[in-house]
Amino acid sequence: MPLSANNTKRKSWIEVPKNSDFPIQNIPFGVFLTKENVVTVGTRIGDSAIDLGALQQLGYFSGIELTDDMFIQDTLNDFISDGKKTWRLVRNRIADIFDENNPKLRDNQEHRKIIIFKIEEVEMQLPVLIGDYTDFYSSKIHASNVGKMIRNEENALLPNWPQMPIAYHGRSSTIIPSGIPVHRPLGQTLPPDATTPVFGASRSVDFELETAFITTDANIMGEMIPISEAEDYIFGMVLLNDWTARDIQKWEYMPLGPLLSKNFATSISPWIVTMDALEPFRVASTKQNPSPLPYLQQKGKHSFDINLEVAIQPEKTEPTIVSKSNFKYMYWTMNQQLTHHTSNGCRINSGDMMGSGAISGPTSDSYGSMLELTWGGEKPLKLNNGSERKYINDNDTVIIKGFCENSQVRIGFGEVSSKLLPPFVRK
Amino acid sequence: MPLSANNTKRKSWIEVPKNSDFPIQNIPFGVFLTKENVVTVGTRIGDSAIDLGALQQLGYFSGIELTDDMFIQDTLNDFISDGKKTWRLVRNRIADIFDENNPKLRDNQEHRKIIIFKIEEVEMQLPVLIGDYTDFYSSKIHASNVGKMIRNEENALLPNWPQMPIAYHGRSSTIIPSGIPVHRPLGQTLPPDATTPVFGASRSVDFELETAFITTDANIMGEMIPISEAEDYIFGMVLLNDWTARDIQKWEYMPLGPLLSKNFATSISPWIVTMDALEPFRVASTKQNPSPLPYLQQKGKHSFDINLEVAIQPEKTEPTIVSKSNFKYMYWTMNQQLTHHTSNGCRINSGDMMGSGAISGPTSDSYGSMLELTWGGEKPLKLNNGSERKYINDNDTVIIKGFCENSQVRIGFGEVSSKLLPPFVRK
Repeated sequence: MPLSANNTKRKSWIEVPKNSDFPIQNIPFGVFLTKENVVTVGTRIGDSAIDLGALQQLGYFSGIELTDDMFIQDTLNDFISDGKKTWRLVRNRIADIFDENNPKLRDNQEHRKIIIFKIEEVEMQLPVLIGDYTDFYSSKIHASNVGKMIRNEENALLPNWPQMPIAYHGRSSTIIPSGIPVHRPLGQTLPPDATTPVFGASRSVDFELETAFITTDANIMGEMIPISEAEDYIFGMVLLNDWTARDIQKWEYMPLGPLLSKNFATSISPWIVTMDALEPFRVASTKQNPSPLPYLQQKGKHSFDINLEVAIQPEKTEPTIVSKSNFKYMYWTMNQQLTHHTSNGCRINSGDMMGSGAISGPTSDSYGSMLELTWGGEKPLKLNNGSERKYINDNDTVIIKGFCENSQVRIGFGEVSSKLLPPFVRK
Repeated sequence: MPLSANNTKRKSWIEVPKNSDFPIQNIPFGVFLTKENVVTVGTRIGDSAIDLGALQQLGYFSGIELTDDMFIQDTLNDFISDGKKTWRLVRNRIADIFDENNPKLRDNQEHRKIIIFKIEEVEMQLPVLIGDYTDFYSSKIHASNVGKMIRNEENALLPNWPQMPIAYHGRSSTIIPSGIPVHRPLGQTLPPDATTPVFGASRSVDFELETAFITTDANIMGEMIPISEAEDYIFGMVLLNDWTARDIQKWEYMPLGPLLSKNFATSISPWIVTMDALEPFRVASTKQNPSPLPYLQQKGKHSFDINLEVAIQPEKTEPTIVSKSNFKYMYWTMNQQLTHHTSNGCRINSGDMMGSGAISGPTSDSYGSMLELTWGGEKPLKLNNGSERKYINDNDTVIIKGFCENSQVRIGFGEVSSKLLPPFVRK
């Protein structure tokens, strides 16, 4: 099936600002609330939010087999569940509808009023109901950095790390879209040199710069998805800030892994960028040594050249970029993650989300967490306003952006931005 | 509010066999599929399944404020979300309807045909849509046994264990009701003395004897549930078999905890027994030393005297009981688990499930896993048919039962039973 939506020659009759993440070649999927309090599935071109529910009701998807209420929903789960063929038909159709040479909607002012909103007039929601969320630990540079700090240079990586994509289950109930603030968590920590823990506000709230992919229904219970098929079950990607309280994590994580240090909040960008839109930015993944076991071996290019950056914005000041990384630095690919996750027969449903783990680049200004950027607080970062940060301060906003770019097109994710508030006070 | 449903003098006009887990004083809640392929919320008295949706439609709940379709649903989430007052009004009303002295339904043969089914004619479903599942590790005897095997007697418990209820996030998508078989998982393991892992069928599939509690909506994001209020948010309990592949676990669990070793399947009993029904069996919990931090301190009795047992049934033979334990051996209480889980502001929703972790008793015949019962395979168990087990064999059925009993009443959970099949073969 030709991906006509990817045609870089195409222009939209909707204005797309220069350097926009959302040209007509992107066509991401999300869910938004209109000023009239209607929730709908939508897409975005430039700075316009497009109501796909209204488009469907007005007949613009005729000829594509869709259930009547496919887009008049508060999640994308049903659409994602329909599979790759439907995703492509719909994305190509949207590209056609908004093509500058197609007068059908362009010249119908009445329909345009019902279908198109200014992006600042809608409120972005979580795009999917996330049944299960797994967070991987698949950047070798990140895992090595953490290992060096916890252990030492020689034993930075544990023996299982190079053999399989290590991960833990995260919490679905606290995944929130960009824009929702987060309270500094309370928790148990063990002060330096103490033998008894204390309970109070975390002193080291960190971000982790991550991406995540959203799956469709992949298998029945018991069934493994072969790596050659894994990509068929990945709908698209978002940016993810894996908020982490380092002091809580340090005290709680042995032997069952992180829990309260992570599950107070996980922020994601609201537009799911499809794998089809990312296709022009496919690159080879990091060379793997040792060679993985056969069930994790794959040929071809399976990573993506996605520029990532993190900024910290203290209240009433401009943001300071504190890290620039790239998705291509990942060691384990999304296909390997999904295949490994199903290798024991674990069932994967539509709307499940899998995080990459912090994505650290090779240089010290490309690390994916404050833990690494300040090397455990040893080297505080200087912000543009002159203040210093070891971790995130109350009322700082953390902003993660991501985009792909070549000479012909820029496909971006927008951002995931979220402010850290002081601890919650019960009314 | 008086718990008239707990009146032990009361008898039902529905026959209740001797030693039934389901006298009229129990009134658990579940979801079942009838022969006519209708899914409904229900309860059970003796060996009768009772359709609460039909009861509601026929007006038997009049006077109780319920949404029209409260019980005509395929999960209990909405009912649980309504809170403790509704749970009690409905449970008391059911006790009244089925009281031997109440002729209203008893003498209405037409209604009885619509409302009451033989238990063997219905198919039990998962009782709730489980948004998030957390599994604790709260039996001190179990954690010590595992610690002794992995480390040594002196360092059996890690320093954090006595300070807080340790837990990990589990996977919701593979939680299944009693009766559904489970395939032996494949996975990566490191053979003894090897430096490179292999991929294949697990050789050490184990059960863990657990209970779990189901919550109602407890808090908004950021908010901690004080321990004095925790009990208000616990709807009821089920039995849980936390299937575990020990060889996969050993190789994967560092440093982020168990993932594929657990998430191939988790089996639960289908009837949720309410905390109100368990009230007569409230007992003091294990004395805690050191004293927990203030946010985890509670007065009064917060454990329950629930007899637990595990049997293994090889194909075409009788089951052999391999362990007899009791919920009262737990170290951390459910209230402490829930309060700790929300101490960082983690949001708890209706239908969330929290497992106890393996519940081991003080003697070697009361341990909650094959790992402990056979001490890592060193002392195989002899079954009644003469065969031996280190772990669970293909085509063995693992049956967990649980019940409370005093001189006046027996309140039981029924069972969670599930057969281990050979590895899945893709068609």
